[in-house]
Amino acid sequence: MNETSERVSIYDSTLRDGVQGEGVSFSDAGRIRFAHILDELGVDFIEGGFAGANQVDRQFFAAAAKETFDFAKIVAFGSTRRADEDIERAPMVKALLDAGTEYVSVYGKSWTLHVRDVLHTTPETNLQMVADTVGYLASHGRKVFFDAEHFFDGYREDAGYAMRVLETALREGAAGLVLCDTNGGSMPDGIFETTRAVCARFPGALISIHAHNDMEMAVACSLMAVRGGARQVQGCMNGYGERTGNANLVSIIPALSCKLGHPCIREGQLKNLRKVSYLVADLVNLRPDPAAPYVGDDAFSHKAGAHVNGVLKNPRTFEHIDPSVVGNKRHLLVSGLSGSAGVRQKASELGIDTATLGTDTVRSLLEEVKQREKIGYAYESADGSFKILVEKMLKRHAPAFELEGFRVIVEKRGRDVPCISEATIKVKVNGQTELTAGEGYGPVDALNEAMRKALTRFYPEISGVSLKDFRVRILDPDQATRALTRVSIESGDGTQQWGTVGVSENIIEASWQALLDSVEYKLLSQPKPEKESPA
Amino acid sequence: MNETSERVSIYDSTLRDGVQGEGVSFSDAGRIRFAHILDELGVDFIEGGFAGANQVDRQFFAAAAKETFDFAKIVAFGSTRRADEDIERAPMVKALLDAGTEYVSVYGKSWTLHVRDVLHTTPETNLQMVADTVGYLASHGRKVFFDAEHFFDGYREDAGYAMRVLETALREGAAGLVLCDTNGGSMPDGIFETTRAVCARFPGALISIHAHNDMEMAVACSLMAVRGGARQVQGCMNGYGERTGNANLVSIIPALSCKLGHPCIREGQLKNLRKVSYLVADLVNLRPDPAAPYVGDDAFSHKAGAHVNGVLKNPRTFEHIDPSVVGNKRHLLVSGLSGSAGVRQKASELGIDTATLGTDTVRSLLEEVKQREKIGYAYESADGSFKILVEKMLKRHAPAFELEGFRVIVEKRGRDVPCISEATIKVKVNGQTELTAGEGYGPVDALNEAMRKALTRFYPEISGVSLKDFRVRILDPDQATRALTRVSIESGDGTQQWGTVGVSENIIEASWQALLDSVEYKLLSQPKPEKESPA
Repeated sequence: MNETSERVSIYDSTLRDGVQGEGVSFSDAGRIRFAHILDELGVDFIEGGFAGANQVDRQFFAAAAKETFDFAKIVAFGSTRRADEDIERAPMVKALLDAGTEYVSVYGKSWTLHVRDVLHTTPETNLQMVADTVGYLASHGRKVFFDAEHFFDGYREDAGYAMRVLETALREGAAGLVLCDTNGGSMPDGIFETTRAVCARFPGALISIHAHNDMEMAVACSLMAVRGGARQVQGCMNGYGERTGNANLVSIIPALSCKLGHPCIREGQLKNLRKVSYLVADLVNLRPDPAAPYVGDDAFSHKAGAHVNGVLKNPRTFEHIDPSVVGNKRHLLVSGLSGSAGVRQKASELGIDTATLGTDTVRSLLEEVKQREKIGYAYESADGSFKILVEKMLKRHAPAFELEGFRVIVEKRGRDVPCISEATIKVKVNGQTELTAGEGYGPVDALNEAMRKALTRFYPEISGVSLKDFRVRILDPDQATRALTRVSIESGDGTQQWGTVGVSENIIEASWQALLDSVEYKLLSQPKPEKESPA
Repeated sequence: MNETSERVSIYDSTLRDGVQGEGVSFSDAGRIRFAHILDELGVDFIEGGFAGANQVDRQFFAAAAKETFDFAKIVAFGSTRRADEDIERAPMVKALLDAGTEYVSVYGKSWTLHVRDVLHTTPETNLQMVADTVGYLASHGRKVFFDAEHFFDGYREDAGYAMRVLETALREGAAGLVLCDTNGGSMPDGIFETTRAVCARFPGALISIHAHNDMEMAVACSLMAVRGGARQVQGCMNGYGERTGNANLVSIIPALSCKLGHPCIREGQLKNLRKVSYLVADLVNLRPDPAAPYVGDDAFSHKAGAHVNGVLKNPRTFEHIDPSVVGNKRHLLVSGLSGSAGVRQKASELGIDTATLGTDTVRSLLEEVKQREKIGYAYESADGSFKILVEKMLKRHAPAFELEGFRVIVEKRGRDVPCISEATIKVKVNGQTELTAGEGYGPVDALNEAMRKALTRFYPEISGVSLKDFRVRILDPDQATRALTRVSIESGDGTQQWGTVGVSENIIEASWQALLDSVEYKLLSQPKPEKESPA
């Protein structure tokens, strides 16, 4: 094996297989943006969609043809001709050519069960379908990846036939053979052995692995195929995909680079992995998984007292790689489990003079956090609310204003008339009252507007604060509309960003708590809050 | 290897390691309930918590001692004595005895890096700490599992020392040796080789695997250790745990049974796996992951046209196991990707006479679903809303009532006074208007109450409908309080349950859409809705 063959190419299938996952969908512009993000990262192949299946995919191929990609090749995906079709007139094959891409992927059957029960044809006819399609596309100048669907199931039941399918595709000029574990039911050691057998049978051929996560082992299966000789890995960003998802490229890329020593993406790009994972989640409007390996918010978070203690002494003690390699960061979390050392450390990070925190104070602070966690509060990503809590425990907290009251109204005047949302609020600062109203897209937006208008007179610095993120978690969904609701918000003022949290059976009350903490945190972090600046 | 040794015991660590995951926490009663659920499933060992660490864990051991478990043993977890402690006076060792359990787990160091940088002691002293602690606990009648923390890292750097640590524990009477991949950085093939070496070195000893998911491979690592000779697997339910989680027992149990042929839990219990996974998620107030392997709502869901077509012909074509084996079900999802066949199939499942659905109607229905998905609607779990949509497309939908309007008010009169929520609604049915008001825990609850009060006069049958589940997803969180919000609700009337969905920038409007569909679905599924039954 020479140096060059050691490189493993990455083939992304998010735009085709990924969008079959629940809630995964791109806008048209989002697809193009996605391709550029992956091009910059250094993904070799981007499957753009099912050629000819629908207008969205056709539009993508047309739009992508007008874009310049430095690195990535766009691939059109489709199937072999049908048993009863003439290759010259097969609509799917025509659609593949019409996509106008240099590379195409063609899937065909390699499991006799499928040939019999789904195609209702003979093994020989199926071979002819593979031969015709690969040969025809190759003769039209396309580089063809042949996707052997259900290859591992097929190999288990009839290894000879499965190998003949691959051999046929290769003979007709396939640029690569893709071994698919379509149902996700194969063990990683079986995948290793089978891939090794295929590589031995077809020396010099590019062998690719395409795994699914039905047994929660798609990453392991992909890497074990590479151990067996595969030099291309197919998967989806963030593991999106039908059922339990496709092999997660975001976990595979760093393992190839850092654990197996195979270069894959562009040099110097691994440190952008977390950013790319988040950008993609944004494009499909899904919340990033905080527990995602390598890139998740919690991937390098330490909560247990012994672990916090360990990483402070030597990060290697509890971290399998340096988080910065994939653009992530270490987090020491505050929770009932972090122990006094964790609470003290976090308070210090938040700029609280920890010399003023006696052992008793730290202990009662820890107790308070535990109590509030029982109700549903979560301080792991709510540094702002944690700081306010510390100030309250230290009896140093002075409310920024008195709330006389607020009222939020949502009104709808007819079945097809949109709702309007208004809020009024009355606050008092140093004896002066202010009554204002605000309107918004929804009740929380209106309340936020009204509060800001009322307070800006007294605290002009809050005009620069805006909300960056708003999350709602129903803590006991089976209580339906009476469920406890946790609202988490992220606020920012251009220089810093902070999280706050509120919990209540009433979503407005929960939101109010988080909004209030957000404003008070901002005022607390001002060098010298001007309490009575003239409006 | 005889028949008996082929059984693999399951060791659950959720109450100790699992609760270190973000947002994972039990009530006191919940811990006991959890233990009974696992006992019934047939989990061999339930780690109850860190002995002596805090009151919650101590309470659990006291409470569990009063309960009867048919199958499972409760295990107390702790560490070896410290370097400078006398074994007779080591608080952690005393706490382990005080827990009063037959089995204890003791962790100790097996990686020289940790011995040096964390314990700041010598390798020989560390061996003595292991020997003293295991020996002392065994001499007090405890069955001791010795947890070799960071075993695989330690073995890579100094295999001889790592083996000596195990040997010491075994010599002192350990009932089992637990190989921990504490940082989750080991490859499955490395784990296989190392476990095999350990089993060869200590024939007859019970070897256990404890893996973490930092590389998204904890399930594969656990199973490969079993291939290497391990006969106990440690992990957490639903993969809960610090950072990226512990090895997921819910994925490991069916793989052991169905793929590797090792009996593990109680016979006949595998079919309750999905139920158990959901019960546990309920106990810790976390939403079950729909993409969870084996047990998730999407694990056997088919959306792509070709897959829907395949499973209808032969389930084996796209399912790696029969879903009913783990208590799950096949779902054919309606979405823009399901194709006409999927839409038609779903309509038929919902009792719509598909003979009335012409090709054009099905095609425009599919188009409508695609358009609505673009905005943020999701019909996969909203059969109720899908049925209403079909009725609208067929122009058969008659609104159950006219909405003249509603108003929702949330009011707070002072900083520490709770919010009150009220709603008024005015509806018209067959020329008769009804204006009513309702109050609730929050704005949606109030609106739901008011609507039900207003409609019950006309439709007494809706009085039996209640809300079972209420979920909120912010679709574009970075739009903060202006974000598009999807509200999904589940309603039930005792005989059936149905899901509906609403989307809007205004959470009240989104909730209203879902509530409205819920009521209209109920009335639609009545044999003969009595439109003017007297109040």
